[in-house]
Amino acid sequence: MNIIVQKFGGTSVADIERIKNVARRVSETREKGDHVVVVISALGDTTDQLVRLAREISDSPREREMDMLLATGEQISVALLSMAMHELGYEAISFTGAQVGIVTDSAHTKAKILDVKVGRMLEELDKGSIVIVAGFQGVSLDDQITTLGRGGSDTTAVALAAALGADVCEIFSDVDGVFTADPRIVSEARKLAHISYEEMLEMAATGAKVLQLRSVEFARNYGVVIHVRSSFSQEEGTWISESDERMEKAIISGVTHETEEAKVTIFEVPDRPGVAARLFQALAGENINVDMIIQNVSEDQKTDISFTVGQEDLSKAARISERMAGELEAGGVVVDEEIAKVSLVGAGMRTHPGVAADMFSALAENGINIEMISTSTIKISCVIRAEDVKKAVRAIHAKFGLDKGVVMRS
Amino acid sequence: MNIIVQKFGGTSVADIERIKNVARRVSETREKGDHVVVVISALGDTTDQLVRLAREISDSPREREMDMLLATGEQISVALLSMAMHELGYEAISFTGAQVGIVTDSAHTKAKILDVKVGRMLEELDKGSIVIVAGFQGVSLDDQITTLGRGGSDTTAVALAAALGADVCEIFSDVDGVFTADPRIVSEARKLAHISYEEMLEMAATGAKVLQLRSVEFARNYGVVIHVRSSFSQEEGTWISESDERMEKAIISGVTHETEEAKVTIFEVPDRPGVAARLFQALAGENINVDMIIQNVSEDQKTDISFTVGQEDLSKAARISERMAGELEAGGVVVDEEIAKVSLVGAGMRTHPGVAADMFSALAENGINIEMISTSTIKISCVIRAEDVKKAVRAIHAKFGLDKGVVMRS
Repeated sequence: MNIIVQKFGGTSVADIERIKNVARRVSETREKGDHVVVVISALGDTTDQLVRLAREISDSPREREMDMLLATGEQISVALLSMAMHELGYEAISFTGAQVGIVTDSAHTKAKILDVKVGRMLEELDKGSIVIVAGFQGVSLDDQITTLGRGGSDTTAVALAAALGADVCEIFSDVDGVFTADPRIVSEARKLAHISYEEMLEMAATGAKVLQLRSVEFARNYGVVIHVRSSFSQEEGTWISESDERMEKAIISGVTHETEEAKVTIFEVPDRPGVAARLFQALAGENINVDMIIQNVSEDQKTDISFTVGQEDLSKAARISERMAGELEAGGVVVDEEIAKVSLVGAGMRTHPGVAADMFSALAENGINIEMISTSTIKISCVIRAEDVKKAVRAIHAKFGLDKGVVMRS
Repeated sequence: MNIIVQKFGGTSVADIERIKNVARRVSETREKGDHVVVVISALGDTTDQLVRLAREISDSPREREMDMLLATGEQISVALLSMAMHELGYEAISFTGAQVGIVTDSAHTKAKILDVKVGRMLEELDKGSIVIVAGFQGVSLDDQITTLGRGGSDTTAVALAAALGADVCEIFSDVDGVFTADPRIVSEARKLAHISYEEMLEMAATGAKVLQLRSVEFARNYGVVIHVRSSFSQEEGTWISESDERMEKAIISGVTHETEEAKVTIFEVPDRPGVAARLFQALAGENINVDMIIQNVSEDQKTDISFTVGQEDLSKAARISERMAGELEAGGVVVDEEIAKVSLVGAGMRTHPGVAADMFSALAENGINIEMISTSTIKISCVIRAEDVKKAVRAIHAKFGLDKGVVMRS
């Protein structure tokens, strides 16, 4: 049985007309003879509306009840899409995450998928039905409704594709694919035909919003081929798979940027073993995701420690840092929200040692100061002033000739 | 363990403020030491909004998908009420019908409850939690989400009370209890302190909207004591139980009326055996609920057959009647929407043969013509012109001295 998983989210299901459009799109795939499993998100701003209702009652509603509440958004959209399929004359059936057997752990609002039971889906596919599954949600082992966190529908789709052995997991959205840079900033940005899991992971981690990071990890772990494409056109988008499936290997895949982070610096920290550990354990204990960490070379037994966090965690991170600064007898804490992170991602840089230097000079040539640097084998990230971010992205994109598709034969 | 089931519906959960009010009401009961299971309906016009969304997609959405869609309404309200209980400092947990084990048959949009599994509720009550259950919904044996039909939350509450062996099932709404007539029509109408199941059944069947008919049947079958009361006052409402619990027995419990029916008459039907059977089988085959049926004494081998149906079924009923009139070579079909049904209910009329005559004369004295009559051992219903309904209710209410509480010793 050839199975294709199709995921529609965000603006693809903004209203009833869009739902009907999704139904037509699914019917075209079905007509080609493939069995289709559809994963969709909540309609338009349903989730935000539900969050608003909860806030009217409580500033900090319990997460179990938030999951109970938010899971209704996707339940509404699967029922409506199923009706729209029937109107087009197709057999279809909708399921909640619990009904289809998407088993998760009990971490409400950010649950992880433990298992997917495929029996019920296969039974319906066998009958020729289109199976429509609520994204973003699952059920814990003790029969509580759980949700997977923001963008969780991508993960649902990839998990279903893995469990069903689907040929491909198509992720539909309002963008045409994965680009060498954000086309709203760089007009010459090119759509990538292929990208490897690990490059996509770095791009998602450094600011490309097209896919949830966890869904890419899941796809890599289970070898699920992803096709990111537009729900408003028939064009091919970007294929994400193991790198050896590609004919050409670019040195660089793309430039990404992130403006939703902030920098916290603790000055004059006494340079003793275990100091950094205490600080970052305290942050981890409050579930704060720290991105980059820089510790300066120490002089006279003192050092400065800087790190970046998502802006939503900033006030908590600052509070903890102030407390730790006091305990550690450090000089003080400074918070900076006016930063941006610009990153260069590409598997080719492993064997091309000059890449980092070229990136730094592109920034220098444009008068952009680098405040923090972090590297992995296939990525370089620089923290700069927020006001410089567009200029930086354009400069790096041009420096590496990404508009011209500079490639090397493998 | 003393358990009280409290059901809040309709206007009691119209908005967030009302939800908070319900939470305070539940907390008062909990403070008295009783364990509380709460059943609630969807917020305000949520259900109507969801129906509207479905209609934008399909004129006749499948019932399975409608259930999937509509069940979200109650899931939203239980999560919100649970949050409101937490805000007041009480332990509470919300459940869907499926989670709590309300097992139904597979008749989507009008499912019947087959079983209620109490394990999970008892476990939570044991821990001291208030258990909040979504009304109106259940789960079929093959794990499909089902709904119980309009007013189904009453049935949910009574079924939970029966399964849990609750002391009482309190039904809260915006009315103070069961009245001898609709207080909007008869200003002297009295609230009944007690009423028996069978009288309540007849009153619900003949137009009293305070309780869903099925919930009363359920309560009678399982001996669940119901207390119908207002969510906006602390006053006692009306108790519904076996009749032997009452100190006094009134001859008449009340006058009810129904204006949502229509009359269909087929003229000059050839008077052969099996004619009525064919007609009413055809109507039943289309799931049309026929209320009253009158067949005149036949002359020259011809007879007239009249019946009443709910106005929502009228066009279907008329179509079927036209077809049957053709097949049976009858004279024709006439439809009449301008009718009303006025009924007198009371267990005492069993032993008081003059009641029907008094009712007819009350109507005659006010110049109201009777078009159809139907009787049971504890009820008399008359079909009259719709324009006469208020006058008729007032005349009958006065004739039997219901404002003065005329009673007889048992």
